Amino acid sequence: MPTQEPSRFLQVTDSNALELACRLLGSARHASLGVLQPGSGMPALSRVALGHDALGLPLILISGLSAHCVALQQDPRCGLLVGEPGAGDPLAHPRLSLECLAERTGDSERSLLRDIFVAWQPKARLYVDFADFSFWRLRPQAASLNGGFGKAWRLEGQDLQALLQRLGKHPPPSAGQ
Amino acid sequence: MPTQEPSRFLQVTDSNALELACRLLGSARHASLGVLQPGSGMPALSRVALGHDALGLPLILISGLSAHCVALQQDPRCGLLVGEPGAGDPLAHPRLSLECLAERTGDSERSLLRDIFVAWQPKARLYVDFADFSFWRLRPQAASLNGGFGKAWRLEGQDLQALLQRLGKHPPPSAGQ
Repeated sequence: MPTQEPSRFLQVTDSNALELACRLLGSARHASLGVLQPGSGMPALSRVALGHDALGLPLILISGLSAHCVALQQDPRCGLLVGEPGAGDPLAHPRLSLECLAERTGDSERSLLRDIFVAWQPKARLYVDFADFSFWRLRPQAASLNGGFGKAWRLEGQDLQALLQRLGKHPPPSAGQ
Repeated sequence: MPTQEPSRFLQVTDSNALELACRLLGSARHASLGVLQPGSGMPALSRVALGHDALGLPLILISGLSAHCVALQQDPRCGLLVGEPGAGDPLAHPRLSLECLAERTGDSERSLLRDIFVAWQPKARLYVDFADFSFWRLRPQAASLNGGFGKAWRLEGQDLQALLQRLGKHPPPSAGQ
């Protein structure tokens, strides 16, 4: 794992870390999405509105006309960053970075995912039924959690599964959070 | 340019678009940074604190121990996303995505860049002089500006230069914005 921070800087993942990661991802209504530009391979970032399915998997609704959708069709590898900085040093506030594989969902799921997504993103009612929009699931492969200076965790394997399980039970922000 | 949005969805870059891009980048105190993970080539996102040098080039201060620094040392290609969503639909708020090449700055500039950066990030005084931290310039190669639904611009060449010129004159947030 060449890009993993040296382990002496990583803390052991415990329930507090999982709780923080779940809070960050579960309360995020938007995220930065990073994809690979077809051809050049340059990392290209965009903002996406975020929901989660019942398995805790991040869900995005994107237009087939958008650059990130064109990129994901060619290479499903993507990164997702959530967490809102508050006042003061932006690096003192926690954030979660997920490394994911994106997967376009099929028509058979559309109606179900529509209802789930609109619960997270009520304003998406305006365009959720446009023909060029489709739902994509992002399957996390690993995650880096940064809780502020000196607080870093790497979530993989069972830790990541535990995070998704917690997230699957997390209600949408509009449902009484 | 396979990932560029079809031109029928792009507007002609005018002074209003440049002004919006300048405002987004000039007022951003943090950004999402996307790099390529060494080995896997996965896009990996993180949060960075942001400053700008006198040429309008984005400036970041990162630790050599961080995963994004290790990645940039191996491949300078990176993406940067700025712009804060407000209430309502997160996609209704403007954002700017830059495709950049990162360049580590030399020791001879350190003192000057230190003063510039601390003007943008007063809290960075706490760690700006740590030996493992270094300044990197991000040289934008192209940018996508999204002003909300139906408002998209692509900035390249002269438009991008015009943006950087404006930004070079932009005072740090702490200097009376």
